[in-house]
Amino acid sequence: MAYLETTPETAESRIGRLNKGLGPLNSALEPGQIGQLGWNLLREDLSLPTAVLYQDRLIHNLKWMQEFITAYGVRLAPHGKTTMAPRLFKMQLETGAWGITLATAHQALVAYAHGVRRVLMANELIGKENMAMVSRMLRDPGFEYWCLVDSAEQVEQLGVCFSGQVQHLHVLIELGVMGGRAGVRNDDQLRQVVAALRRWRDTISLDGVELYEGVLDDEASIRAFVRRSVGVARMLADEDQFQRTPFLLSGAGSAWYDLVAEEFSSAGFGVSVEIVLRPGCYLTHDVGSYRRAQQRILEHNPIAKRMSSGLIPALHVWAYVLSIPEDEKAIVGLGRRDAAFDSGLPAPALRYRPGDAMPKPALAHWETTKLMDQHAFLKIAPGDNIRVGDMIGFDICHPCLTFDKWRVLPIVDSRFDVVDAIQTFF
Amino acid sequence: MAYLETTPETAESRIGRLNKGLGPLNSALEPGQIGQLGWNLLREDLSLPTAVLYQDRLIHNLKWMQEFITAYGVRLAPHGKTTMAPRLFKMQLETGAWGITLATAHQALVAYAHGVRRVLMANELIGKENMAMVSRMLRDPGFEYWCLVDSAEQVEQLGVCFSGQVQHLHVLIELGVMGGRAGVRNDDQLRQVVAALRRWRDTISLDGVELYEGVLDDEASIRAFVRRSVGVARMLADEDQFQRTPFLLSGAGSAWYDLVAEEFSSAGFGVSVEIVLRPGCYLTHDVGSYRRAQQRILEHNPIAKRMSSGLIPALHVWAYVLSIPEDEKAIVGLGRRDAAFDSGLPAPALRYRPGDAMPKPALAHWETTKLMDQHAFLKIAPGDNIRVGDMIGFDICHPCLTFDKWRVLPIVDSRFDVVDAIQTFF
Repeated sequence: MAYLETTPETAESRIGRLNKGLGPLNSALEPGQIGQLGWNLLREDLSLPTAVLYQDRLIHNLKWMQEFITAYGVRLAPHGKTTMAPRLFKMQLETGAWGITLATAHQALVAYAHGVRRVLMANELIGKENMAMVSRMLRDPGFEYWCLVDSAEQVEQLGVCFSGQVQHLHVLIELGVMGGRAGVRNDDQLRQVVAALRRWRDTISLDGVELYEGVLDDEASIRAFVRRSVGVARMLADEDQFQRTPFLLSGAGSAWYDLVAEEFSSAGFGVSVEIVLRPGCYLTHDVGSYRRAQQRILEHNPIAKRMSSGLIPALHVWAYVLSIPEDEKAIVGLGRRDAAFDSGLPAPALRYRPGDAMPKPALAHWETTKLMDQHAFLKIAPGDNIRVGDMIGFDICHPCLTFDKWRVLPIVDSRFDVVDAIQTFF
Repeated sequence: MAYLETTPETAESRIGRLNKGLGPLNSALEPGQIGQLGWNLLREDLSLPTAVLYQDRLIHNLKWMQEFITAYGVRLAPHGKTTMAPRLFKMQLETGAWGITLATAHQALVAYAHGVRRVLMANELIGKENMAMVSRMLRDPGFEYWCLVDSAEQVEQLGVCFSGQVQHLHVLIELGVMGGRAGVRNDDQLRQVVAALRRWRDTISLDGVELYEGVLDDEASIRAFVRRSVGVARMLADEDQFQRTPFLLSGAGSAWYDLVAEEFSSAGFGVSVEIVLRPGCYLTHDVGSYRRAQQRILEHNPIAKRMSSGLIPALHVWAYVLSIPEDEKAIVGLGRRDAAFDSGLPAPALRYRPGDAMPKPALAHWETTKLMDQHAFLKIAPGDNIRVGDMIGFDICHPCLTFDKWRVLPIVDSRFDVVDAIQTFF
């Protein structure tokens, strides 16, 4: 058995009886068994609030992004930190992803334990136990892993650790911008990192260059940053600093992947480079900043314009109307414990009265005005057809901070039958 | 075996191998076994970021609040939604708590499954499966449970469900204020609820009155609201509407429990009432709004003034310095995935360089200026003694939204030895 392999015997693979948003369970089940229980959201078989994934939309988004990325002749390593759902990682890999991107050693471990064997950790690896976790995974010769480096100090710490383990570590140099996050800002910092990497070249392989453009928010700055990274990569390639052929060039979050794809794919590196893009939020999409980003892409990107449609929101958090204490206010059983609130509040999308045939669109003037820990304030109008006990399906803004509120998310089909479920490992 | 009892054989009771913030685990362990592994935070045995509880501070806070509440001759039902940690519920009950407050049927189920047998659900119970969950727990004659009602519609739905189960449900009427959350606003609404309760009195027992004053933010409004609730309780008692003797009168979140204790205990109900207060954040406290609330209480409340000290922050999130890419900026491996950010960003409290004897206080001018999903931006000054690989312990603001980012939190002693661990069930 491979290191940490998750089997039916390990607790991690089972869904316990105490997760929110599910129906009754008398014992822990395998995720695949959830779809056999006959639960239906509209029959109120689930305890609300619940976060559900719409199967058809999820699959649509999965294919859309793979098709978009493939059209540029580049690779997709979806950022797994968004969902931390190994079942979704598996779907992404089976649809053609090159690997999975993750942000921490712990996240890499979760992916590894569920069979992911190519991880780009788009972050600096720091700390004794974090390095030890990576070291243990690297004992599996089938595991490919990269982390980022951006300082000589960090390279020294990695060199000491992995040479002590007589292991080889693969890294990318992270580039950054003033005012941004991590990443080397200038040639002086770059030269220090490269010099440290040369001292440790028997232990650490420099395999390429990485950037995260999402710290910027306008097209011109982003194109300039991506072009700078192309220039640095070209220089390092000319100096023969890369130990991987082809070398890796990686960028792109969920908002600007189109620009990064354009710039990288037109850089003219040919077969000497492997370009890896890392959007993560596309699977469920949202109605916040990523919808705005997607609108821009659909309007301007030639490949997206040729494709039949764009990304579709694929996750709803459903909750009950608990109280209508004022003519213009309903209190809904959905809070900061259930959905992201950092880039827009959950937006009412569907309404359903138990017993009806199917949900209807939420009224256009309904608006979430406040989110407390366990409650949402919904602005309604006097006389609206809304009642205590009605169910409301909310679109969400920012998938990352919604997924991390849920340990299990049911997957429903177009009849709202629960056909499957995914587990998250935050 | 009682319904849903958690035993060593159930997955819920074990800590799996894939939780963040821990050291290496080769197999799932009971929480009590974690303290036997010899982990020490300062020796870097844990994968950072990690959220740790300080054992001595936790116990101090536990006793402080029980002593404060007892001095008023009232009951404590700590709000369990803050931590959702059954081990902490047990400590609270063993220290003298009357019961545990919770916010949803799912939360009540988690408490029940871990042995809690008196639950005040300070929220409206709504929905088929949520009611079914409560109904299943109520088959245990040893289980006491109350939920809130604030509309005739809700009372009808509860009546139909629980009469169908031939079960008896106990409720409190929730009072609310205009602009607030749930709760009846006026006499007209109150009379409708009372009339509905009278129709269902064979199924539903009205046991008392509840309010949550935390939707208001000044002392005068809060005292007025609490006094109104005292008046409503007196009126309903005079009308013989309560089916419990003594009837219940409940209020108080984590910020204004002193005022509620004063008002309720001086209302003159004597033995005809049982007063139940529900602060939840006191266990770990924070350095945000609850510290400000505590300062007010220590300055003004006569009982708090007599006590030897106040509440102390008992939770730190520890993380590594990943990068120092600019003279005045360090990037730390701690983000919105790890700590609350809705009422203040995590504040650097301690710094530690691996190999040193003990942590030192963080420099006074250090400040968290931004939190991304997995990263914090720390403002430093040029020349500060800070290095990639240093560990920083952050105080947090808002315990509720920090606890829900962690499935396991180690408990450390004054030497930072991991002596225990708690699990959360969000």
